[in-house]
Amino acid sequence: SRVEAQENVRPTESITHVELHRPEKRNAMNSAFWSEMVTCFNELSEDPECRAVVVSGAGKLFTAGIDLMDMMNNVLQPEGDDTARISWGLKKKIRKFQETFSVIEKCPKPVVVAIHGACVGAGVDMITACDIRLCTQDAWFQVKEVDIGLAADVGTLQRLPKVIGSQSLVNELALTARKMYADEAKSSGLVSRVFADKEAMMAGALQIAGEIAGRSPVAVQGTKINLIYARNHSVADGLDYIATWNMSMLQTEDLMKSAQAALEKKSPKTKTYSKL
Amino acid sequence: SRVEAQENVRPTESITHVELHRPEKRNAMNSAFWSEMVTCFNELSEDPECRAVVVSGAGKLFTAGIDLMDMMNNVLQPEGDDTARISWGLKKKIRKFQETFSVIEKCPKPVVVAIHGACVGAGVDMITACDIRLCTQDAWFQVKEVDIGLAADVGTLQRLPKVIGSQSLVNELALTARKMYADEAKSSGLVSRVFADKEAMMAGALQIAGEIAGRSPVAVQGTKINLIYARNHSVADGLDYIATWNMSMLQTEDLMKSAQAALEKKSPKTKTYSKL
Amino acid sequence: SRVEAQENVRPTESITHVELHRPEKRNAMNSAFWSEMVTCFNELSEDPECRAVVVSGAGKLFTAGIDLMDMMNNVLQPEGDDTARISWGLKKKIRKFQETFSVIEKCPKPVVVAIHGACVGAGVDMITACDIRLCTQDAWFQVKEVDIGLAADVGTLQRLPKVIGSQSLVNELALTARKMYADEAKSSGLVSRVFADKEAMMAGALQIAGEIAGRSPVAVQGTKINLIYARNHSVADGLDYIATWNMSMLQTEDLMKSAQAALEKKSPKTKTYSKL
Amino acid sequence: SRVEAQENVRPTESITHVELHRPEKRNAMNSAFWSEMVTCFNELSEDPECRAVVVSGAGKLFTAGIDLMDMMNNVLQPEGDDTARISWGLKKKIRKFQETFSVIEKCPKPVVVAIHGACVGAGVDMITACDIRLCTQDAWFQVKEVDIGLAADVGTLQRLPKVIGSQSLVNELALTARKMYADEAKSSGLVSRVFADKEAMMAGALQIAGEIAGRSPVAVQGTKINLIYARNHSVADGLDYIATWNMSMLQTEDLMKSAQAALEKKSPKTKTYSKL
Amino acid sequence: SRVEAQENVRPTESITHVELHRPEKRNAMNSAFWSEMVTCFNELSEDPECRAVVVSGAGKLFTAGIDLMDMMNNVLQPEGDDTARISWGLKKKIRKFQETFSVIEKCPKPVVVAIHGACVGAGVDMITACDIRLCTQDAWFQVKEVDIGLAADVGTLQRLPKVIGSQSLVNELALTARKMYADEAKSSGLVSRVFADKEAMMAGALQIAGEIAGRSPVAVQGTKINLIYARNHSVADGLDYIATWNMSMLQTEDLMKSAQAALEKKSPKTKTYSKL
Amino acid sequence: SRVEAQENVRPTESITHVELHRPEKRNAMNSAFWSEMVTCFNELSEDPECRAVVVSGAGKLFTAGIDLMDMMNNVLQPEGDDTARISWGLKKKIRKFQETFSVIEKCPKPVVVAIHGACVGAGVDMITACDIRLCTQDAWFQVKEVDIGLAADVGTLQRLPKVIGSQSLVNELALTARKMYADEAKSSGLVSRVFADKEAMMAGALQIAGEIAGRSPVAVQGTKINLIYARNHSVADGLDYIATWNMSMLQTEDLMKSAQAALEKKSPKTKTYSKL
Repeated sequence: SRVEAQENVRPTESITHVELHRPEKRNAMNSAFWSEMVTCFNELSEDPECRAVVVSGAGKLFTAGIDLMDMMNNVLQPEGDDTARISWGLKKKIRKFQETFSVIEKCPKPVVVAIHGACVGAGVDMITACDIRLCTQDAWFQVKEVDIGLAADVGTLQRLPKVIGSQSLVNELALTARKMYADEAKSSGLVSRVFADKEAMMAGALQIAGEIAGRSPVAVQGTKINLIYARNHSVADGLDYIATWNMSMLQTEDLMKSAQAALEKKSPKTKTYSKL
Repeated sequence: SRVEAQENVRPTESITHVELHRPEKRNAMNSAFWSEMVTCFNELSEDPECRAVVVSGAGKLFTAGIDLMDMMNNVLQPEGDDTARISWGLKKKIRKFQETFSVIEKCPKPVVVAIHGACVGAGVDMITACDIRLCTQDAWFQVKEVDIGLAADVGTLQRLPKVIGSQSLVNELALTARKMYADEAKSSGLVSRVFADKEAMMAGALQIAGEIAGRSPVAVQGTKINLIYARNHSVADGLDYIATWNMSMLQTEDLMKSAQAALEKKSPKTKTYSKL
Repeated sequence: SRVEAQENVRPTESITHVELHRPEKRNAMNSAFWSEMVTCFNELSEDPECRAVVVSGAGKLFTAGIDLMDMMNNVLQPEGDDTARISWGLKKKIRKFQETFSVIEKCPKPVVVAIHGACVGAGVDMITACDIRLCTQDAWFQVKEVDIGLAADVGTLQRLPKVIGSQSLVNELALTARKMYADEAKSSGLVSRVFADKEAMMAGALQIAGEIAGRSPVAVQGTKINLIYARNHSVADGLDYIATWNMSMLQTEDLMKSAQAALEKKSPKTKTYSKL
Repeated sequence: SRVEAQENVRPTESITHVELHRPEKRNAMNSAFWSEMVTCFNELSEDPECRAVVVSGAGKLFTAGIDLMDMMNNVLQPEGDDTARISWGLKKKIRKFQETFSVIEKCPKPVVVAIHGACVGAGVDMITACDIRLCTQDAWFQVKEVDIGLAADVGTLQRLPKVIGSQSLVNELALTARKMYADEAKSSGLVSRVFADKEAMMAGALQIAGEIAGRSPVAVQGTKINLIYARNHSVADGLDYIATWNMSMLQTEDLMKSAQAALEKKSPKTKTYSKL
Repeated sequence: SRVEAQENVRPTESITHVELHRPEKRNAMNSAFWSEMVTCFNELSEDPECRAVVVSGAGKLFTAGIDLMDMMNNVLQPEGDDTARISWGLKKKIRKFQETFSVIEKCPKPVVVAIHGACVGAGVDMITACDIRLCTQDAWFQVKEVDIGLAADVGTLQRLPKVIGSQSLVNELALTARKMYADEAKSSGLVSRVFADKEAMMAGALQIAGEIAGRSPVAVQGTKINLIYARNHSVADGLDYIATWNMSMLQTEDLMKSAQAALEKKSPKTKTYSKL
Repeated sequence: SRVEAQENVRPTESITHVELHRPEKRNAMNSAFWSEMVTCFNELSEDPECRAVVVSGAGKLFTAGIDLMDMMNNVLQPEGDDTARISWGLKKKIRKFQETFSVIEKCPKPVVVAIHGACVGAGVDMITACDIRLCTQDAWFQVKEVDIGLAADVGTLQRLPKVIGSQSLVNELALTARKMYADEAKSSGLVSRVFADKEAMMAGALQIAGEIAGRSPVAVQGTKINLIYARNHSVADGLDYIATWNMSMLQTEDLMKSAQAALEKKSPKTKTYSKL
């Protein structure tokens, strides 16, 4: 049967669960995956019901990364024999693959990724584009690309240095392709929490997603957008941008609702916020 | 009685202690606070006696953040009913509030902030603009804004990703408003030291400030300015900037004084450096 | 006898070992050092045999940093008495010293630095320009410049904030010149591994270098170049750059060789890759 | 009948002529236009036959700009009454409209725009995204947005300062909405050539497009992409980018073909270049 | 009598005329000027009545630039004899002088500058910070600083290359201090119009200012702010910024008023727009 | 006989005349040229006698650009048959060629280039890196690279858009390789002056160089460095940089000498300035 890159099972009304679902192939990413990811996250971006996303993998591990046979058959089959034209085609393909993960960042709804077992190669590229990373105690991570003879080109080298606080570790991982286990992933800041097993992690992921989904979407999605903006700009530019952003967003009714909850010493989740 | 945003008690000649002093309201930031901060730090910037600053909070905790009632009465009362004109006014207010904390960064004297009890909302915006962060074992931190229905717009979203090494944690804190306690604040790098209690922390803060104040102000303040510059620019731009900076600063007499102390195996604090 | 800044002992065919070799002066950096570093790394950049570099220090400690007497005699002797012309000359010297360490970054071969004993002042500037940092349990680090009366101007202030995840710690180290020991260096992410003693560390350094040197140089060196590019640019610019880079690099024969090894469940080191 | 935003009449095999074709409404841009532009240029980007594009307007003038009634009915009808949610929706629409003209820049095939009669409001936004601008002697240009009560937000304010050499003129045009006639358009550098009438201009446009289409598409499209890159980056970044670009593109067979033509003192158009 | 840097004669309710008024000294800029400029433009920024500003000079010429005697007495008198401390003080003064002209850019109301006779040295720094430049036929311009032995440091070198389209001319003017006359100022784009004499120019300036002041201040001031933003950022950043800006500003009532005027084929000036 | 890339005939003590001297080959740039340029300008950078440079071409025209046969034999002969390794080698060569012209920009002494006859291909890359461009009435310019089947990669695409005020013209020239004659070169701002013939031009070039060489080198070279810095940075960054620059440079004795000349109504050239 064909690969299903995701199954939308909505745990609550406002949380979408996206599952990498090709367990018999260790959720290896093939051609179908690349296009389904884009469709999936573009839809989630537009879906006003969805306020938070949880991503996980079906089966024994999160993902084995790119499907090597698939890549060699489809991606790397040059057309023609002029180097420039082959290069031109390759750049288009790389840009398209990059977009597969960039849609996660462009989706204004926060994305919590829950990793168990293993996360290899393009899997690392993928999770660095997510907002919050969780893992199980048995998880390991591997920046695999150098083992396949290439510099990682769909996000790891670009985002990992901005995601992890130790450049020495980033370099070591990317240059030697050694595995990193859960404890080091936690202490280095790749993940913000480690859980005993997948069940506990999924509960934790849904709990975090629930916290997010229950708050004002104006506040939540504005926060995601501005965090990503800040990462790529100077502090001065970031401050100007959010001031321009909030000159309208502070006029939301959510502010009064939330403030009222705060004054009443209640959780903001006790209020209902309109769709965005 | 009116709010006193700071009390200048100079522990030694060259260290200024700024205290958030509205303990009956948990040092909540109100209109008076916003303008007094600017005045205070602009004066410290110009005061040649002051070589290091310690910031702390009076009473039970560091700060509860913005005074919600004050904000709702003063900040968010729109004038007129044209959305564009209301927005225009809001942007001006946000920019003014941002400046409240940016003055800490623009002040060339290093600012050590000592946090006890709690540091909530705008308090986090404030401490991310300080240079060195310390806390007590009982301190907790909360990026509260999303609970009030807005994206944090006076510095947290812009500075926290450049202050802490785990982007996953930054996102989690900003999107869920969960509390972070002292141990995680230390392991994530938000603070560089944790103390048993406020007394020990204040002693530690003054000790660090004393180390700073005793060294050459040419060296110290040039270091602060260049660290902030480096954070916002590429390494190449940062190297060019400090070379341009130091082409004059290396001609200081402090260099010879300090080097002499070093050759004599003495602390640089044994020398006297002129005001800057 | 004169200072030997490096001794090329090639542990294996493709790893170069560069040793700071002036043990009687605690490997203090003098005039000879500054020029020999540039020559050494420019040669390594061009040398197709060399695929990874290990840097360490001879004798009791890694390096005591700049040779203060040498600096005061050579660097800081102003010519003439016009401040502008003295400044002009100083800027040229600073730029030249900066280049001493920037060559490490410009060298596309990964550089593993192994630090024992102590790493002081300009030594910290140097190691922040290396790719992977290791140390012994007895090692300590000191951003010493503020003690000599100057803002560090050959790399520490520019690179350390991008190397370590805690800006509070970076500021504390740079403003107070306090020593940081191995454990804090590890937990803060300055080094990615700590070893019991120098012997163990050198074995570890060579093992890491061996992992690197055994992989495709197209993959490895492309990875280093793109990691450094990413650090200085936005994610969007970084993604565009590597797509442009890889449109040719993916056409390497190393990709097929490596992929074949992967399909055979063998290490990529079992294959032979042509020189680059 | 419905609006036809463009008619593809291919003057030669490799030049595509895109015509704004709603002459009875002075080619005013309506909802259909915005989506057809994107489709049209995305197709041209992918179409290997197309090597150059000529854009012009049917009827009496190039374009009267946005269809005001259409905009007021469709774009500016707010949904709901929460300012933040209305703002969120407006931003999405603006970004979509911006994309309408950004596709012209993203299309690697050079776009020659030929303007006659008048080019008003969004028309100016559009032509600043084209590569080469030509006009007739009777053409005039008007940055109209300020007259409609808004700051131009689909490209004019962003691109015009990078397109025209006189910032004083740019400001005057944008702030007063005065008309600029052909002579000033030429002397200020908005257009590179002025023709007596539309017929002459179309011949000229096709001649320029022919020059472009007859040359190596590897050279031509690489030139467009790098010119746009250079406009948005420093010279140093631009030089690094094109070196990375050309490390593959110089391996094209077109280089040998073209060079041979040059050595034979023939036009490069005498050679045939494969599709790209 | 003391120098009056400006006289506010309001030609119409919404246009402010700022005059350099120290004719007996050829409007040379002295200490009083530097501080009065800041006060004046900060007030204009806040004054809701003011919608456009015209700047001109009293007497025989626009300005002779800095008052050399004043500068030598006040600015360049070093305090103390430590080069670093003198440098520190100089930087503060330069930054303060830069701010004198940067306030013109930060003032959101468009500034039309009308130059007659001569505009020398700091005068050129000043006019490059204005939005629209006009001059008389007898006007000349001189980037004088190199003649006084310094690189221009209050704006000319930074803004002139972004104001004029010929970098060769910019370099020639700045490196040789030669005079440029009205015709070349017009053809190079420094000014957008040349008038026969001062009377005609002032009428023209007021007419342009009137065009600006009569339009929606939401549109006009948003345009100025975004034009300046665009000059300093990439096109992509500029497009994102204005979309964020306009998501609120498009909700203005001015849009409907202006659009109505346009549909009625009337000037937007026939409508009344609320203060901003 | 071998190619002489330059002949240093020093017209006056402080002006260096660099001549492209391979007239029998129309000053075509070959391997010798590329390395001699670097040596020449690196020496001029260090030579304290040299305060201004004039570049011109010997024989019938300025330069025919790259020597096609030389390039095809030396540059484009791939080593090996792995595309990645060929690409790697090509990038190194391109970067080296780029450096050939970047040395002109890095040389702090202003470079006046005088063009007669023709300036083709790499000749345009070269002159865009010079500071002031002059030409004869019979000169023409041609961005030739697209005719050879490549995107210009040694500076034209990167610098021309920042040198000329009409982006439409830049694009037309780069995409069609059409010739531009002296009048259009002047009106577009590529050159700042046109002379009747080579003799008049050389006199003019030396006169301009004389104006430059006679002024304070602190002022002149600081001006060049800051103009180039400003081109690549925002206005805010440029202002900060020059303030940091001038905090030392204003302490020069040249300032007093020059100011004294100004007060005496004499030319700054009547004073003598020390070497830099």
